[in-house]
Amino acid sequence: MDVGELVDRALRRDRRAVARAITLVENASPALREIMARLAPHGGRARVIGLTGAPGVGKSTSTSALVTALRARGETVGVLAVDPSSPFTGGALLGDRVRMQEHAGDAGVFIRSMASRGHLGGLSWATPHALRVLDAAGYDTILVETVGVGQAEVDIAAHADTTVVLLAPGMGDGIQAAKAGVLEIADLLVVNKADRDGARATVRDLRQMTAQAALEPGGWRPPVVSTVAAEGKGVDELVERLDLHARYLDDSGEGDRRRRARAREEIVGIVLAELRSRTGDLDGRADLDQLGARVAAGRLDPYTAADELLASLA
Amino acid sequence: MDVGELVDRALRRDRRAVARAITLVENASPALREIMARLAPHGGRARVIGLTGAPGVGKSTSTSALVTALRARGETVGVLAVDPSSPFTGGALLGDRVRMQEHAGDAGVFIRSMASRGHLGGLSWATPHALRVLDAAGYDTILVETVGVGQAEVDIAAHADTTVVLLAPGMGDGIQAAKAGVLEIADLLVVNKADRDGARATVRDLRQMTAQAALEPGGWRPPVVSTVAAEGKGVDELVERLDLHARYLDDSGEGDRRRRARAREEIVGIVLAELRSRTGDLDGRADLDQLGARVAAGRLDPYTAADELLASLA
Repeated sequence: MDVGELVDRALRRDRRAVARAITLVENASPALREIMARLAPHGGRARVIGLTGAPGVGKSTSTSALVTALRARGETVGVLAVDPSSPFTGGALLGDRVRMQEHAGDAGVFIRSMASRGHLGGLSWATPHALRVLDAAGYDTILVETVGVGQAEVDIAAHADTTVVLLAPGMGDGIQAAKAGVLEIADLLVVNKADRDGARATVRDLRQMTAQAALEPGGWRPPVVSTVAAEGKGVDELVERLDLHARYLDDSGEGDRRRRARAREEIVGIVLAELRSRTGDLDGRADLDQLGARVAAGRLDPYTAADELLASLA
Repeated sequence: MDVGELVDRALRRDRRAVARAITLVENASPALREIMARLAPHGGRARVIGLTGAPGVGKSTSTSALVTALRARGETVGVLAVDPSSPFTGGALLGDRVRMQEHAGDAGVFIRSMASRGHLGGLSWATPHALRVLDAAGYDTILVETVGVGQAEVDIAAHADTTVVLLAPGMGDGIQAAKAGVLEIADLLVVNKADRDGARATVRDLRQMTAQAALEPGGWRPPVVSTVAAEGKGVDELVERLDLHARYLDDSGEGDRRRRARAREEIVGIVLAELRSRTGDLDGRADLDQLGARVAAGRLDPYTAADELLASLA
């Protein structure tokens, strides 16, 4: 199948073509440039919702519950699960697949796991490309599930229209949430497993913290939603709040601002990848090994070592 | 105080000089080059232990308990708490300080929080510099506490001699741990809050998973230690296991390998910072804003936009 045919099929939401295009993204295929150029005019319609939070809060379960709710009203849904790649993840991906299995036979749902580690700049390069594929393929809503807190979480906020941060009671109090830096990026906060001890206190703490944030006139204050995703509880309210945020994005112009920011991220990701490829693969260089050994032994300082490496690149 | 005097004082473990040098690292001071050059011959003695895990597992409490144990046998200890910076972290840092307060009056302990976000390349640049300061200042052991899982966690493994991954029961089963990619980087696994329900199952799951990993002859299989850090329980065993790992690093040559790898990371961090500074600050450029708007509108593809940006940089 040539690139033109692949893109044509992906634009008709042919699942195998969509899957193949995302594989080309993961493999950094030379065909990417042409694929992205052909897809470019067909994007900008999907709503991108990022879901993130620490391991164990129920991200996969919540994602699956959201898929069910969105499908019930006729939306097509793409799901991108961004995992740190690991030799141990076989089991984890299987776990996800079990949770997602109820959607396996649904032609209106496309589910894909992607590795984030190993990609230059983490998510900044591969995720926007994969989103572009799913957007152009015509999925109404794209759910991006990211494992972990920290940089990956911050990155996802740069790529999503709406960022949902999930927490669970008993996984730390409000201070811990703040420590993880999650409040800053959340458009919606979800306390999942809300039937557990301490859920009310967690909700209350989060509401107090979001209430303290300075807000511009007409700005958006992140609501705190309680769910028991495994039983579908609270998911309707979550969907309602997501719709409200989508309307806010449209009305305030913030949605356009975020889409432009996402495009800038994508461009910068490509520029940095190109700059880095021009310098060659630093990690494999013999002179870096030697410089590293000298620095480790205290015979050379790291800046002088960097100068030597830079001189050899020029 | 000039740079020479600052370094001389830091080498004598003058706490104010050490603190000031790390502030210069955080601020990417132009004096860094000279400071690092002066410190270079004096490093390579400290043992660097990274502690990481999801929010709520008790990293700060465990770090504090380790400080107490190491101090009891006369070691000097530096603590670097790497936090994602956030407008909300005031409370979190305060929380840490409360936990660390028992060490506040101890001249053999140096405690410092550092922001990781905003630094080019995250930890890859600032953390090795700060470690270099503490190492040259003569702290026997340096504990690096990192918030979160994901890329920050992987980064810390690149900088530490020994990486300790903390988990807590009830925060997800073994699959969740694998999903977070933590087993791959752990030299030691700690199940903290081991007095809680489900602790035994978590320990058993983790042991099963580490038992499955392929091991070279004479290799290190990460032990799983149970602790209740808030009560000091299990901390002696943790210290013993850390000592065993230190001996393994010495005997196997793995310690030298890691120190050289850390030096390479530090050099590459400087090279990339320099390359990026040569291209100017992409984020602030007006042409990037315009390119981003055109890409967002589907009138331009991201690769062509990147080409235009690259051409303007040359």
